[in-house]
Amino acid sequence: MPDTPDQHQEPVAGGGLLHRRALLVAGALSAGGLATGLKAATGARSPATMLKPGAPLSGVGERAPSAGTIQRIVPSLPFPGTGSSRTPLQLLEGTITPNGLHFERHHNGIPDVAPATHELLIHGLVRQPLLFRYEDLLRYPRESRILFLECSGNSGTIGADTPVQGSAGQLNGLLSCAEWTGVRLSTLLDEAGIAPQARWVQAEGADSAGMTRSVPLSICLDDAMIALFQNGEPLRPEQGFPMRLLLPGIEGNASVKWLRRLKVMAAPAFSRDETSKYSDILADGRAELFSLRMGVKSVILAPSFGLDLKCAGFREISGLTWSGRGRIRKVEVSADGGASWAEAALTGPVLPKALTRFRMAWRWDGGPVTLMSRATDETGAVQPPRSEWLAKYGPGQTYHANAIQSWHVDARGRVSHVYA
Amino acid sequence: MPDTPDQHQEPVAGGGLLHRRALLVAGALSAGGLATGLKAATGARSPATMLKPGAPLSGVGERAPSAGTIQRIVPSLPFPGTGSSRTPLQLLEGTITPNGLHFERHHNGIPDVAPATHELLIHGLVRQPLLFRYEDLLRYPRESRILFLECSGNSGTIGADTPVQGSAGQLNGLLSCAEWTGVRLSTLLDEAGIAPQARWVQAEGADSAGMTRSVPLSICLDDAMIALFQNGEPLRPEQGFPMRLLLPGIEGNASVKWLRRLKVMAAPAFSRDETSKYSDILADGRAELFSLRMGVKSVILAPSFGLDLKCAGFREISGLTWSGRGRIRKVEVSADGGASWAEAALTGPVLPKALTRFRMAWRWDGGPVTLMSRATDETGAVQPPRSEWLAKYGPGQTYHANAIQSWHVDARGRVSHVYA
Repeated sequence: MPDTPDQHQEPVAGGGLLHRRALLVAGALSAGGLATGLKAATGARSPATMLKPGAPLSGVGERAPSAGTIQRIVPSLPFPGTGSSRTPLQLLEGTITPNGLHFERHHNGIPDVAPATHELLIHGLVRQPLLFRYEDLLRYPRESRILFLECSGNSGTIGADTPVQGSAGQLNGLLSCAEWTGVRLSTLLDEAGIAPQARWVQAEGADSAGMTRSVPLSICLDDAMIALFQNGEPLRPEQGFPMRLLLPGIEGNASVKWLRRLKVMAAPAFSRDETSKYSDILADGRAELFSLRMGVKSVILAPSFGLDLKCAGFREISGLTWSGRGRIRKVEVSADGGASWAEAALTGPVLPKALTRFRMAWRWDGGPVTLMSRATDETGAVQPPRSEWLAKYGPGQTYHANAIQSWHVDARGRVSHVYA
Repeated sequence: MPDTPDQHQEPVAGGGLLHRRALLVAGALSAGGLATGLKAATGARSPATMLKPGAPLSGVGERAPSAGTIQRIVPSLPFPGTGSSRTPLQLLEGTITPNGLHFERHHNGIPDVAPATHELLIHGLVRQPLLFRYEDLLRYPRESRILFLECSGNSGTIGADTPVQGSAGQLNGLLSCAEWTGVRLSTLLDEAGIAPQARWVQAEGADSAGMTRSVPLSICLDDAMIALFQNGEPLRPEQGFPMRLLLPGIEGNASVKWLRRLKVMAAPAFSRDETSKYSDILADGRAELFSLRMGVKSVILAPSFGLDLKCAGFREISGLTWSGRGRIRKVEVSADGGASWAEAALTGPVLPKALTRFRMAWRWDGGPVTLMSRATDETGAVQPPRSEWLAKYGPGQTYHANAIQSWHVDARGRVSHVYA
């Protein structure tokens, strides 16, 4: 054991939070004694796996059965194609969501769109309407970006009178992140030639819900993409194969999947999907439309509901943070219900409009604590307390729920969702 | 069509290479006329997918059957667990390799290692030997990094007398990139307490080849990691589940999979896997040992063998670039067999010891051309011509093959591997 085991374990806030140094400096954890005591004759006996040849090569690899089942969280639905499945965030690490676990939100199921016959039409207030086959788009210049997608209804139960007890994925798993590759939308719009009076673009999917959203032209000319690939592969069917709109930082439903039509217009269409749904009820009773950009947010995944603590001592508090406005500047963590806060480490690249992983060193003393995280993005926007978020909206609001979330750990290590 | 279609299509080198602006500026491609001519009554008729409900939600999503089969390239082997499968690089986009498509290199198959009983021993020149169960390691602080892994034998056929005709994945697919999450090795070594005379660490896997490599202590104390997660999920069995050594920028075999033992030593072990294999035959007949770091390299994936061009006109030249020494500074592309070069765009984040995607705007005139790419990393190291690489090594050398590769496109659009 090191001579001075506590030298890197400087407390930085209440409830056992330690300085980030404890994550980064070698030896910081030695006092924790996390390693198992050394057995006699360890290493002298070869494990059984060394005594026989292993399994062969394969075309496509599968998950290790002994790693446990990791699946999307699929609810029981009256119409099985209309609803959402959630990414099991609390079972994953890092920031990239494997393609098979990317959350789903369908308005009438996943259409089987054939790339050989699918077409994308750009029309409306343009000099020349254009029709693109999948094969045509493959010849355009591409860009690749790591970006999050979040459903506007994610974390919506935070408005409920009592805290819903569910895993971090059940509560917040309408959230995923991937490396998307596609064609910059501005390239195609410019080819069609945008008329001077154009201000909006209506996007329509080839699903049987005819999912339709209006998007400001400014967003379409900024960093919008027609995505064709997801983490290297062609898009998955549930993510819009063969092509989808992808609007970085914007609520997920506006990134219309199975994209078949973009109509350039002077005003929004006020379609069903942006009036009966996906508009926000404000505290004064008015509805806010086109509140498209996702707010600054963070959520603690370890520990969280369902992942109870087995013993006191050192562990890492870890979670995800993101903002539709750009990069995350900092995440603060509290282990005493908000009385004191300390800044977490952001590990991995901090990319704009992408998930970022935060980590906080923590020594749990075995007593009850309440854990919270609070993100600030590069524009200075700060994740609001629940009370502040509630005060902005009317009853029943479930969209754009970016309020601070709290997990309570009791003296037995059980984790529950609380309002703090 | 824009009034001045050619304004962004400035030639920058021979063979039709265009300025990077053509990738980045809207409207640059308009003169290409890539969009399909508009049909009468387009958009008035709904596609069949809009007339019936689609498929339901699911726990784990699958690839679209109509996206075509994308699999690792698996050779026919006398011992099916001893060899390698390759990532089909030419069929993928961006930089992240989906977990099921990460290349494999096994020395005697994939062991079925149970996380509940697997142990990692750190011993040798340490103050106190330590034994870690998987569960122990899960309590240590973690870090996440996007990193490439490349087999030291990747692209080894470039030394052959005549150019091997194979896809970019067949020739160069012992290469993948993922977001890895794990525990910094220096944390564990420091806990064990390294003796003053220690200089090397020998790593051993729990496979039946007893794969064993010696690694300089300096690398282990720098950015080495015990990886536990790969693109969010627990490691795949063929990537070392439940834990592997991960040495950023170092030849893949040294990142020992199914890691069970790290022995701290004063000198290398000179094990079978670093003497009979994985050493380099130099031109003067001597063998260079422990040439662990992978060189600066790039490879063009589009176009490449098997992906013939169907027509003249605009398209993107695209590929991957990487260096074991850090970030890529630039990639230059030639479309006239090396007579003239122009700098490609690096799209996406340019991360150290990770794959980076490069893209070059190109107008193919329909005549024969020879395409090449040449990478330079942040240390100033430049990818060598084949002749320079050959001159360094003796006959039969297949490791650390980072020479410039060339694709010839003939007047019918057929792509072949050539030495230029």
